[in-house]
Amino acid sequence: MIEHETQIRVCYGDTDMMGVVYYGTYPRYYEIARTELLRAHGITYKEIEEAGLIWPVRSFHATYLKPAYYDDLLTVRTFVDQLPEVRFHIHTEIFNQAGEMINKGEVVLISTSRETGRPIKTPEWLLSKFREMGE
Amino acid sequence: MIEHETQIRVCYGDTDMMGVVYYGTYPRYYEIARTELLRAHGITYKEIEEAGLIWPVRSFHATYLKPAYYDDLLTVRTFVDQLPEVRFHIHTEIFNQAGEMINKGEVVLISTSRETGRPIKTPEWLLSKFREMGE
Amino acid sequence: MIEHETQIRVCYGDTDMMGVVYYGTYPRYYEIARTELLRAHGITYKEIEEAGLIWPVRSFHATYLKPAYYDDLLTVRTFVDQLPEVRFHIHTEIFNQAGEMINKGEVVLISTSRETGRPIKTPEWLLSKFREMGE
Amino acid sequence: MIEHETQIRVCYGDTDMMGVVYYGTYPRYYEIARTELLRAHGITYKEIEEAGLIWPVRSFHATYLKPAYYDDLLTVRTFVDQLPEVRFHIHTEIFNQAGEMINKGEVVLISTSRETGRPIKTPEWLLSKFREMGE
Repeated sequence: MIEHETQIRVCYGDTDMMGVVYYGTYPRYYEIARTELLRAHGITYKEIEEAGLIWPVRSFHATYLKPAYYDDLLTVRTFVDQLPEVRFHIHTEIFNQAGEMINKGEVVLISTSRETGRPIKTPEWLLSKFREMGE
Repeated sequence: MIEHETQIRVCYGDTDMMGVVYYGTYPRYYEIARTELLRAHGITYKEIEEAGLIWPVRSFHATYLKPAYYDDLLTVRTFVDQLPEVRFHIHTEIFNQAGEMINKGEVVLISTSRETGRPIKTPEWLLSKFREMGE
Repeated sequence: MIEHETQIRVCYGDTDMMGVVYYGTYPRYYEIARTELLRAHGITYKEIEEAGLIWPVRSFHATYLKPAYYDDLLTVRTFVDQLPEVRFHIHTEIFNQAGEMINKGEVVLISTSRETGRPIKTPEWLLSKFREMGE
Repeated sequence: MIEHETQIRVCYGDTDMMGVVYYGTYPRYYEIARTELLRAHGITYKEIEEAGLIWPVRSFHATYLKPAYYDDLLTVRTFVDQLPEVRFHIHTEIFNQAGEMINKGEVVLISTSRETGRPIKTPEWLLSKFREMGE
């Protein structure tokens, strides 16, 4: 299993009039965290795109367990437990400073050819990077 | 069943560098559509809050079937098929101008006391409004 | 002078924990309003881009006079008082339901070649459309 | 003069279909940077609010000099050159990895009583913190 933790500070613009982080802010947190997971393992999403691969989101699911507040320093834990052959499942859990899990969910990306816009098998060079990461 | 359709025009700020609507923009579309469903039936979210009830999001799930593009005029169909006793399930489907379903999902809100922050049964005056709507 | 009015409903995601519309939400309102000004005069930003012209923002200035609140139905008035030869100045004023001006400002776009990324004179076919609008 | 530098990584959601950071994303960058300036000097915006003071934005001005791209690691320099007696002027400059200034501007906040919603003189305890910072 590959995993990574990123810290995100909640800013004013992330909140709504309920005084907590807006539910539509979380996809952004998930995105930042999965990018940092890849970067920590030497992959930038940028180089993936340059190799002709894009990873559009196929599905997003999140459960909101507790609110997050302005100025919270959240820990976003991301993990991957299967090779992203075509579908790339990324699990995310978010914790507040008190160590409480406040949000958890999953995003599924689809390996897609930038040229044709169609799903493709993730290139072997990239899959082998994932195999190395998991060791 | 209660249902409603709202139209939303995709703006520049909704898109990302992939040239399509960013996946994190959809929660906003879902929110606008469910507010308009309520408004169309004579309920404003504002009066609900004034009555001491808040509806924080418990979960969000969306499947991204096709991309939405800048300037698209989307039709967002929202429907409710059970009384929101405590959990309020709202189904959403989004269609593009060609009539293709591009996104579908569900949001679950929880009837919560503004004062205590705890889940409560939705007040009877509001439930009876939902019963009327569904007739 | 060319002018147009668009209505925008404030949604939950537009607000912040101060209970009012976040200052960073306004550029989006300005963008929606100027797009609708063009559309009302038979120009879509999309066709402009297809003609090889892009209009990146050069500057944004806004003065926040009064707060806007959740569920407000804002009237966004946009006007253009000079031909967009290279720089395209767009003035914006936002009013609440009570008719109070709550925000005013200006955005300057630059006519730019999509191919070279350099400023260019706005094509004559487009300038003449602006001349017609102003009549 | 009080100054501070913060680094911000551009994420996917910050960009638009032009392939660059959306102009409406910058207010968020400005906000993050001024919060970090205060934090670096031992002030949290949270404690200010708890002391009954709020700082709504009075004006925002930004000039967009060059585009910022996905995955750029931006350096946001914030500086304050006068005591925030009532109006709090904050200057911001943003640089890309190549050291090029890509954006500059100013935000003016107004010291406001949380209770009355009216402008007030910034409390002495806070002004003296600013005096110390500037030494």
